[in-house]
Amino acid sequence: MFSPVAAAPRGAWSAGAVRLVRMTITRADGRAFDQLRPISFERGFQRNAEGSCLVTFGGTRVLCSASFTEGVPRWKKGSGEGWVTAEYAMLPRATNTRNDRESVRGKIGGRTHEISRLIGRSLRAIIDVKALGENTIVLDCDVLDADGGTRTAAVTGAYVALADAVTWAKGAGVLKAAAAPLTGSVSAVSVGIIDGTPMLDLPYVEDVRAETDMNVVMTGAGGFVEVQGTAEGAPFSPTELAALLELATAGNAELARLQAAALSL
Amino acid sequence: MFSPVAAAPRGAWSAGAVRLVRMTITRADGRAFDQLRPISFERGFQRNAEGSCLVTFGGTRVLCSASFTEGVPRWKKGSGEGWVTAEYAMLPRATNTRNDRESVRGKIGGRTHEISRLIGRSLRAIIDVKALGENTIVLDCDVLDADGGTRTAAVTGAYVALADAVTWAKGAGVLKAAAAPLTGSVSAVSVGIIDGTPMLDLPYVEDVRAETDMNVVMTGAGGFVEVQGTAEGAPFSPTELAALLELATAGNAELARLQAAALSL
Amino acid sequence: MFSPVAAAPRGAWSAGAVRLVRMTITRADGRAFDQLRPISFERGFQRNAEGSCLVTFGGTRVLCSASFTEGVPRWKKGSGEGWVTAEYAMLPRATNTRNDRESVRGKIGGRTHEISRLIGRSLRAIIDVKALGENTIVLDCDVLDADGGTRTAAVTGAYVALADAVTWAKGAGVLKAAAAPLTGSVSAVSVGIIDGTPMLDLPYVEDVRAETDMNVVMTGAGGFVEVQGTAEGAPFSPTELAALLELATAGNAELARLQAAALSL
Amino acid sequence: MFSPVAAAPRGAWSAGAVRLVRMTITRADGRAFDQLRPISFERGFQRNAEGSCLVTFGGTRVLCSASFTEGVPRWKKGSGEGWVTAEYAMLPRATNTRNDRESVRGKIGGRTHEISRLIGRSLRAIIDVKALGENTIVLDCDVLDADGGTRTAAVTGAYVALADAVTWAKGAGVLKAAAAPLTGSVSAVSVGIIDGTPMLDLPYVEDVRAETDMNVVMTGAGGFVEVQGTAEGAPFSPTELAALLELATAGNAELARLQAAALSL
Amino acid sequence: MFSPVAAAPRGAWSAGAVRLVRMTITRADGRAFDQLRPISFERGFQRNAEGSCLVTFGGTRVLCSASFTEGVPRWKKGSGEGWVTAEYAMLPRATNTRNDRESVRGKIGGRTHEISRLIGRSLRAIIDVKALGENTIVLDCDVLDADGGTRTAAVTGAYVALADAVTWAKGAGVLKAAAAPLTGSVSAVSVGIIDGTPMLDLPYVEDVRAETDMNVVMTGAGGFVEVQGTAEGAPFSPTELAALLELATAGNAELARLQAAALSL
Amino acid sequence: MFSPVAAAPRGAWSAGAVRLVRMTITRADGRAFDQLRPISFERGFQRNAEGSCLVTFGGTRVLCSASFTEGVPRWKKGSGEGWVTAEYAMLPRATNTRNDRESVRGKIGGRTHEISRLIGRSLRAIIDVKALGENTIVLDCDVLDADGGTRTAAVTGAYVALADAVTWAKGAGVLKAAAAPLTGSVSAVSVGIIDGTPMLDLPYVEDVRAETDMNVVMTGAGGFVEVQGTAEGAPFSPTELAALLELATAGNAELARLQAAALSL
Repeated sequence: MFSPVAAAPRGAWSAGAVRLVRMTITRADGRAFDQLRPISFERGFQRNAEGSCLVTFGGTRVLCSASFTEGVPRWKKGSGEGWVTAEYAMLPRATNTRNDRESVRGKIGGRTHEISRLIGRSLRAIIDVKALGENTIVLDCDVLDADGGTRTAAVTGAYVALADAVTWAKGAGVLKAAAAPLTGSVSAVSVGIIDGTPMLDLPYVEDVRAETDMNVVMTGAGGFVEVQGTAEGAPFSPTELAALLELATAGNAELARLQAAALSL
Repeated sequence: MFSPVAAAPRGAWSAGAVRLVRMTITRADGRAFDQLRPISFERGFQRNAEGSCLVTFGGTRVLCSASFTEGVPRWKKGSGEGWVTAEYAMLPRATNTRNDRESVRGKIGGRTHEISRLIGRSLRAIIDVKALGENTIVLDCDVLDADGGTRTAAVTGAYVALADAVTWAKGAGVLKAAAAPLTGSVSAVSVGIIDGTPMLDLPYVEDVRAETDMNVVMTGAGGFVEVQGTAEGAPFSPTELAALLELATAGNAELARLQAAALSL
Repeated sequence: MFSPVAAAPRGAWSAGAVRLVRMTITRADGRAFDQLRPISFERGFQRNAEGSCLVTFGGTRVLCSASFTEGVPRWKKGSGEGWVTAEYAMLPRATNTRNDRESVRGKIGGRTHEISRLIGRSLRAIIDVKALGENTIVLDCDVLDADGGTRTAAVTGAYVALADAVTWAKGAGVLKAAAAPLTGSVSAVSVGIIDGTPMLDLPYVEDVRAETDMNVVMTGAGGFVEVQGTAEGAPFSPTELAALLELATAGNAELARLQAAALSL
Repeated sequence: MFSPVAAAPRGAWSAGAVRLVRMTITRADGRAFDQLRPISFERGFQRNAEGSCLVTFGGTRVLCSASFTEGVPRWKKGSGEGWVTAEYAMLPRATNTRNDRESVRGKIGGRTHEISRLIGRSLRAIIDVKALGENTIVLDCDVLDADGGTRTAAVTGAYVALADAVTWAKGAGVLKAAAAPLTGSVSAVSVGIIDGTPMLDLPYVEDVRAETDMNVVMTGAGGFVEVQGTAEGAPFSPTELAALLELATAGNAELARLQAAALSL
Repeated sequence: MFSPVAAAPRGAWSAGAVRLVRMTITRADGRAFDQLRPISFERGFQRNAEGSCLVTFGGTRVLCSASFTEGVPRWKKGSGEGWVTAEYAMLPRATNTRNDRESVRGKIGGRTHEISRLIGRSLRAIIDVKALGENTIVLDCDVLDADGGTRTAAVTGAYVALADAVTWAKGAGVLKAAAAPLTGSVSAVSVGIIDGTPMLDLPYVEDVRAETDMNVVMTGAGGFVEVQGTAEGAPFSPTELAALLELATAGNAELARLQAAALSL
Repeated sequence: MFSPVAAAPRGAWSAGAVRLVRMTITRADGRAFDQLRPISFERGFQRNAEGSCLVTFGGTRVLCSASFTEGVPRWKKGSGEGWVTAEYAMLPRATNTRNDRESVRGKIGGRTHEISRLIGRSLRAIIDVKALGENTIVLDCDVLDADGGTRTAAVTGAYVALADAVTWAKGAGVLKAAAAPLTGSVSAVSVGIIDGTPMLDLPYVEDVRAETDMNVVMTGAGGFVEVQGTAEGAPFSPTELAALLELATAGNAELARLQAAALSL
């Protein structure tokens, strides 16, 4: 029979041994294993959007815009609730080698679909659709430069654009000043295990070498919104999973602080 | 600074309190919180495929076929390595209301793409591509009846079809008798939190009510291959995550036993 | 019993000489020239559909579902009449070599279109659209295993699913108990000339060798709904055509009996 | 001359009673039941094609071109055999109400696919692919004006274009003067039952009223290539089928004569 | 008559030197540098369209139809204004080598789009949308034979079809007899510089050799509607541009006369 | 400095009267009729591309990247010549109202196609394909902010990216130091007539009001590469055309100076 106590996070879930190792590792870019890349948020980058943010995670830059429109899709009409959705794309030369445009190919690839859906779910996690009323916010996340972690940068930057779009809507009188459609903040970060060491916020060179790769989306209050871990090589253990989640928790806490700081300007 | 020891899985990671609650819950179909639905594997269902398995998880039935072909995609030629990929689809009337065919709509939806990619990654996790040689195995997973957990049933059934295709290849002399392209088995199960209680292997009625929904793919040896958790309502806590992973671990262990039993017939 | 001699046409249409030859032929699977393959109907195969039938013609298996929905397409609204339509598809590994999915290719092939249209017309031939009222029945015919005659098996199985959907609708009160939307039954069978001999219900090995290939859809009352004959090699004569139509007439009569028997269970 | 009485089938296939009726019918355009519409062939209509023919069946006009190219599709390479294929389309304003272009809709409809395939099969029936050598002929049939029977006019006109393309190829030295890739001629005509009377070569106004509609493709030597009969209303009987086939046989014989006359100019 | 000397621009735009050269050139088809190819308009070519014109510019033939329908696209509803749009296409064998159909390829090429848009803009230039009322005219221009200048022939022929459709609409009472939706006529012609000499109305053999290629759309009153000049080789000078515009002006004046003559029959 | 009076054409092309009017006009953004918006070039904006330039024309910003790859498309192989092509797109929220992505719609619109082709032709006008050798340069122009003149900004910025890619190729040894694939520079600017006054470099508010709209692509040496003028309202006269070309000539001369300055940094 299933015995939760016997299986409890001693031993199997302990990450202590692993951690002693990581302390002495130096990464290619000089960061500590638990350090984020330089992060920045440039608000108002696109002039027409209700919210716009060019987010930078080291060599990764994603242009996030939030388009606020009155009304909702047909299947939401009359519900009194709003809707938030997202689309992710890469410019052809965001990467080292040029990629064909999905518009030219005539269809959207599986990876694009998957990331767009992840971003949409992540942002909806901090939206009170009732408080949003029958309004729609579309988040467009276009990768200008890709150096690993484009989806986590996109979630993190999209939140800033979204917050600005909500502020805009209040200013424009589309939302009442007292409306609180945002129930918190949300950010995302990647973590992975490289040569046996858990590391935070992987650039491309680390990402391709990672044995395990995980994207963790969390609220500013520390709740998990999405946990997506994939064994690229050997399967990972509960110990490794726990270590990765801890790293991600700390990284997301830092990102939440940086988002708040950017929005306070 | 990040202090792993202070954050260690005491308290936050302990799932004890939650568990006392779930012991007394009865599910709509009479199962215990940690019990799988009736599982079965009908091998050889499609007569032409090198491996074929109709897998049943309660009311969910997925027809999995494994097509073994010599040769690999262009980008793998000359590598000496094989390739395993997967495609997932639903028959129009697998669900309660008929869905339009994706072939008729002219494009594959994001959900289909995402699940196809998950199945492919999951099966590749237990493949030694060198041992497979320059051969390709395509796994087709077509849902005949959908009652929650179609992607986890698909992974679990696809493994059985894959194992049979490997056996076929040895019998047909396409693979040497000594080749060992399978490094283990793989299965998947869904877990979720419903009314605050973690539960295993959710049927549709539970799935739509779940606050948190997680799909966990594991090897027969107990390693994690994929962990995909999503907060559908409120974010989830580390405690809840740990409880879900334990349930999934036990569920996958049971599935691995059932797969082995089915393959031993 | 089928008596070819009694039914023999005279003058231009006489097929007497041909028939003496066929009496002595033995087919690869041991059948007589005028014998159907083993036929079975497994009703209720898909649990969600209003009507569902897994039909088997020897090595060919087609999963037919009938989806009954209230309402009709826009161009039928207000007509007081119902609508019946069909879609045909093959699972990728129904055949000896895997076929790409039409959803992945992004378009439906000509053969698929043609067969879908044939099935739809065939079923509409026994529907009284006035008696159906403004309701729609969609027939999905998905080939699980293909060994020749998939379109004829599909028509034959779809009728059984359709009949069950009508019964369901009466039970559910969507149709009045006295409504009679079915004006009869419908079935289909293939016939062909192989090495000069007309034969009934061709499996794949015979189909590819047939000089003439014909699909004949008939009502249970013996009327022709569709006659589609194609010379694959040399053109065929009126005599050959008559002989093929006789074989098909007898085959469809037998199929009508089997359908009735299956529906009486 | 066509003598329905002399050709009358007896026994099961006798259509005598039906025929007494039809003798007294006058059609909207003044034709007898067994009379073709005015037919013409304008060869060389498109200046660039190796063979080109604007065929007229009363108010239906189809521009047929035959493009002769050296080489064959990949799957035919090295076979020593040629290939003939066809594409059918309608100009948007061939019909009474403008139809959207299939290029604009981004996909080809089922009807277009079906007719293209029919034309291709029909022309291949009189081609000796060995004698054609590894050359390809593509037949394009574009309907300029549609007044019923577009597919039968297309087959009939395409043969003339094809014959001219073969003549061109001999003149150009691409085919040897002694090569005989054409084993005969081919034509097609529609027949149908209107108010109980079988009629030949239906214009649109008759076509929409026909209880049974049949397209019959025949060689100049009188063999059947395709017989496609569909009950639009009530099923049809063997007697009716026989009567329709007789009408079509005579109509195709007349078309074969007209084709030969056109090609002799 | 066209007198280049009298029309010669002075100063910056003078093209005098160029012109002395061109006087002595003889073109492959015997025309003078400023002479149109034989032009003809065959009205009523397609029987169903409200306006139809087969226009011929030498070896180029385009079938233009104008479909007049009551009502306008959604975005025009309630505006009291009409709409005119155009679609251009080539039959597969209009050209020397067969082109794949865009319907088969599943998408419309850039060139087709570009020309369709040009034709639509050109015709709208002489439409008073208020006077047209909420009616739509669609111009379909299908190239039967292509020998250079297909887009200019299309604009020129589409005007004739359009004028006939307007006449039809008045006769049918859809437009009031006093309505004047046409504010004038419109035509188009190509000009180009070949071996340093400006020439009018280029056939294919000249078009491919042209250093500069220009399409000029003008009203019958002599106003410019579209000027599209492209340097195929070396850039062109203001002098050359002026010389080309003069040639085009004279050519369009002649076309306007021919259109008027055709419409007066 | 640009002196419209000195450059005035006489006779047919004189625009004197018009010009007196324009001297006194003040534009919404305070510019003179013959003044460009603030122009800037930010080189190296995308880090991975061989050439990258974020070009600004007032409120219009276009991100141009040049991807240099060895090899050419199949139809160019063995020619010894290179190839340059371009793709244009808009981010969804470049405009005031969000536009659907063309990748999501599954096809590229006519406007996008048309502009992509224009950019490609424009850049090829200053390329010596022999000197480029069998190398390909793809120019991607993605509009971040659209305020009129996106295609002219794209051409102008793409040249800067192209020049940097050529420099890169020489540095990387892919091109010889002595190779001179660029025969000059190229830029583009829009001009239009608003309320009877010709104006240079139209922002969106002017563009929508323009009676005539023209895009003029020129080399740095002052030759015309593309002249595309469209009458949006009334047709335009030779006089107006000449005035617009003069404005564009001066504007392009200024752009050429600014490009050279940016490239000299």
